[in-house]
Amino acid sequence: MHRVLVLGGDGYLGWPTSMRFSAEGFDVHIADNFSRRQFHRELGSDSLTPIRSLSERIDAWKGITGRTIIAHQGDLRDYDFVERTIRLARPSVIVHYGEQPSAPYSMIDVEHATFTQSNNVIGTLNVLFAMQRIVPDAHLVKLGTMGEYGTPNIDIEEGFLEIEHHGRRDRLPFPKQPGSFYHLSKVHDSHNIVFTCRAWGLRATDLNQGIVYGIETAETARHDSLCTRFDYDETFGTAFNRFCVQAVNAIPLTVYGKGGQKRGFLHIRDAIECVWLAATNAPKAGEYRVFNQFTEVFSVRQLAELVADAARKMGYITIIKHLPDPRVEAEEHYYNPVHVGLERLGLRPHLLSEEVVESTLRMVAKYKDRIVEARILPRTNWRPQKLEDEPRQPELVARPEPVLAERG
Amino acid sequence: MHRVLVLGGDGYLGWPTSMRFSAEGFDVHIADNFSRRQFHRELGSDSLTPIRSLSERIDAWKGITGRTIIAHQGDLRDYDFVERTIRLARPSVIVHYGEQPSAPYSMIDVEHATFTQSNNVIGTLNVLFAMQRIVPDAHLVKLGTMGEYGTPNIDIEEGFLEIEHHGRRDRLPFPKQPGSFYHLSKVHDSHNIVFTCRAWGLRATDLNQGIVYGIETAETARHDSLCTRFDYDETFGTAFNRFCVQAVNAIPLTVYGKGGQKRGFLHIRDAIECVWLAATNAPKAGEYRVFNQFTEVFSVRQLAELVADAARKMGYITIIKHLPDPRVEAEEHYYNPVHVGLERLGLRPHLLSEEVVESTLRMVAKYKDRIVEARILPRTNWRPQKLEDEPRQPELVARPEPVLAERG
Repeated sequence: MHRVLVLGGDGYLGWPTSMRFSAEGFDVHIADNFSRRQFHRELGSDSLTPIRSLSERIDAWKGITGRTIIAHQGDLRDYDFVERTIRLARPSVIVHYGEQPSAPYSMIDVEHATFTQSNNVIGTLNVLFAMQRIVPDAHLVKLGTMGEYGTPNIDIEEGFLEIEHHGRRDRLPFPKQPGSFYHLSKVHDSHNIVFTCRAWGLRATDLNQGIVYGIETAETARHDSLCTRFDYDETFGTAFNRFCVQAVNAIPLTVYGKGGQKRGFLHIRDAIECVWLAATNAPKAGEYRVFNQFTEVFSVRQLAELVADAARKMGYITIIKHLPDPRVEAEEHYYNPVHVGLERLGLRPHLLSEEVVESTLRMVAKYKDRIVEARILPRTNWRPQKLEDEPRQPELVARPEPVLAERG
Repeated sequence: MHRVLVLGGDGYLGWPTSMRFSAEGFDVHIADNFSRRQFHRELGSDSLTPIRSLSERIDAWKGITGRTIIAHQGDLRDYDFVERTIRLARPSVIVHYGEQPSAPYSMIDVEHATFTQSNNVIGTLNVLFAMQRIVPDAHLVKLGTMGEYGTPNIDIEEGFLEIEHHGRRDRLPFPKQPGSFYHLSKVHDSHNIVFTCRAWGLRATDLNQGIVYGIETAETARHDSLCTRFDYDETFGTAFNRFCVQAVNAIPLTVYGKGGQKRGFLHIRDAIECVWLAATNAPKAGEYRVFNQFTEVFSVRQLAELVADAARKMGYITIIKHLPDPRVEAEEHYYNPVHVGLERLGLRPHLLSEEVVESTLRMVAKYKDRIVEARILPRTNWRPQKLEDEPRQPELVARPEPVLAERG
C-alpha cells in the first residue's frame, strides 16, 4: 500500500497535493498546525478565495470521491508529535510543505526572523530524526525554493556544480546566496538534509520551486468547497497575484524597483505534477537529489505587462507604477537556471498564456468584494529603517519597538 | 575608547581572549550563560585543569592588573538580554564564541541536535539584530570552524571561490560540506551573517578556526587562578588532548578509523592572536570577510605519533590503537586549505614542536588525579544504532529512548 504524509497539507499547494495523491490511490495523511491561517489573522489579511476548514475539505472530498484523508493537528517543532504522526501514517513518501513560506514575513522584525528559522529548521530536523527512526526507507520530498540560489552571474545548475580549481575537480553543492531570513531557512534545511542522506542513508528530493501561479487543479475543480487559497497581500501574496488583484480593483500594478528581477514561474498544475513525479520516482537510499522546479522565466516587469495587457483586453483601465524596491536584490541581472530533471521524469509544462491570465482575472473579479486593499502595498522593508536618536541612558526594562517593521 | 564584548567569555578561548583585550587597554564586557560548565555536569566530565568561577577569575585579574572586566550572565537566545547587554557595553568589537562548540554533543540525539542548531543559529541572529539596532558600525568577529568546509577534492579557499562556468565568472561562497549538526549550525550562521552584511551594511569577520591545542597564553601564565580549561573527554575534548591524557594515564592512544583524517591545527597563543589581529583590522561597512585560522595540517595518525614519541622520551609506555570511526568522515582524503589572510595581517605562527607536546604532557601529569577515564572513549555514534524491532502497534504516549546515544 502506498502511503503519503503531507506536512502542511492544509496549505496552498499542500491541499491540492493531498487530493492528487488520494485520487491516485494513496492513503493520505496530513499534518498541519494551521499556522498560515493564523499568520493571516495576525496581519489582517486573508485568502481571496473563501477556503473551507480542513475538516470541511476532507468531508467534501470524502463525499465526492469516497476516499478518506486523515488529518493530524500539531507542530513540527514538537518532536513527539512528529514521531507519533509518522508512526501512525507509516508513509513511504513524506511531502514536506510544513514551513513558514514568506520572505517578507521573515523580515518583519527579530521575532519573525527567529521564528521563521527555528520553525523551519527545527521542524525539518525533527522530521529527519523521526524518519531515520521509524521509516528510514521513506522518501522525503522537500519543498525548497529557487530563491536559495540568489542571482549569481553564472548558470544555476540543479543543486550541484562540477568545479575545476587549480587542476583538481569535484562535484560540490551549488553555492547559495539567499536573500531573506526565509530563503536562508531553506538553505539551512538543504544542508541538514544533505548531511542526513550521507550519514544515515536517508533518501530525499529537494525541489527548488519557482513562483507558483493559478489555483485550479483537476481536483480543486471538482467542487467549490475543494478550492485552494489565493494570497495577494504584501506578505504571502506573489507579484502575479498582486498584479491581478490590482488590475481588477483598478489600482496601479506596483512593480518593485526597475522590475528587471527575473524569476522562475510555474502553473499550480505543474507544481503538483512535479511533486507527483518526484515522489513516484524515488532516489536510491543515501541519495540527495535536487530539481529546479519551474517552467519559464519572466522579469517582474514582463509579468506586470502580461497582466496589464490581458486586463486591458477585458476592459480594465490598467497602469503600471514602479515603487522603491523594499527588498535587497539586484534589479537587473543575469539569470539562467537549468531545469531538466523534472522534464526528464515526464513533466509537460503548462505555460503562462493569455488564457491563464484571463481566467485568473475572472476568478479575482468573482471575489472582488473580499479584497483587503490596505494589505496590498509593502510595509516591510529589508533595509534598516531610520531610528530616533538612542537614549543616552541604557533602558534596562522597556523593550524597543521592532526595527524592520513599519506596521501601522 | 575601545570596547569589546566577548560572547562566551568564560570559555576555553573566551577567557584568554578577554584577558588579552583587557591587557591591551580595551574595556572588556563578557556575556556568558555558563552552558559549557553545565554540559560537563550533564555528561559527568570536567576540565582537567581546575578552573575558577568567572567571578573569581575576574577578581584575580583585577587583583593582578588593576583592570576591570564586566560580566553579564544570560542566554543569547533571549533577544532582550542580548540587546540590553549591547546597550550597556556599546562595543566597537563583538567577539562571538557564544555557541555550543561540540560535534559529538550535537550528535547525541534529536534533543541535542535541535538544541545545538537553535542555540547557535538563533543566538547569532539575535546578536545580528541587536548590532544592527544599537551598534551598526561595530565589527563582529565570529568563530566558525574549518569543519564547515568538509574535505572537498579541491583546494579550500578563504570563504569564497572564483568560479568559471560555461564561459561566465563569479566569486561565490565556497561550497560547504559540514559533517555534524554542530558544523552545520556554523554554516547556517555564516549564511545568515553574509546576508546581514549585504542587507544591513554590517561588517563581520568569520574565522574558520582549526583545532586549537595548548592552554598557556601570556595572560593565563600570570597566575594559576587565571588558567583556562583543558577538555579531553569524548564530547568536548580534541584528539590532541585525548592523546596526551591517554599517554600520561598509560592507556592506548585511540585513533578513530585509519587516522588519515587531516585537519588544520593551531596553538592557543596563535588562536588568540588571530582574533586580536582580525578585531583590530576591521573590514569596511557591508564587508563579510573570511579567514581560515590555523597554522599547520596534521593527520590524526601523525598527531598520535607526535604525542606517542614525546611521551616515550619522557618514560611513558605508549601504544596507538585504532577504533572504528564513530563519525561519518573520509579516513583518507585530499586536504589543502589556504591560510594567508591572517599571516598577511601579521600572524607569526607557533608550531607544534616536541617542546609543546612535552609541556602539555607535564601539565596533564600535574593534574593526573583529576582524569575521569570513563569519559575518554567515544559513546556517541554518527550512524544510526540498531533498533529493537518496532512494536506493531504504534505507541501513542510513551516517548522512545534516544536513537543515537549509547549512554550508560
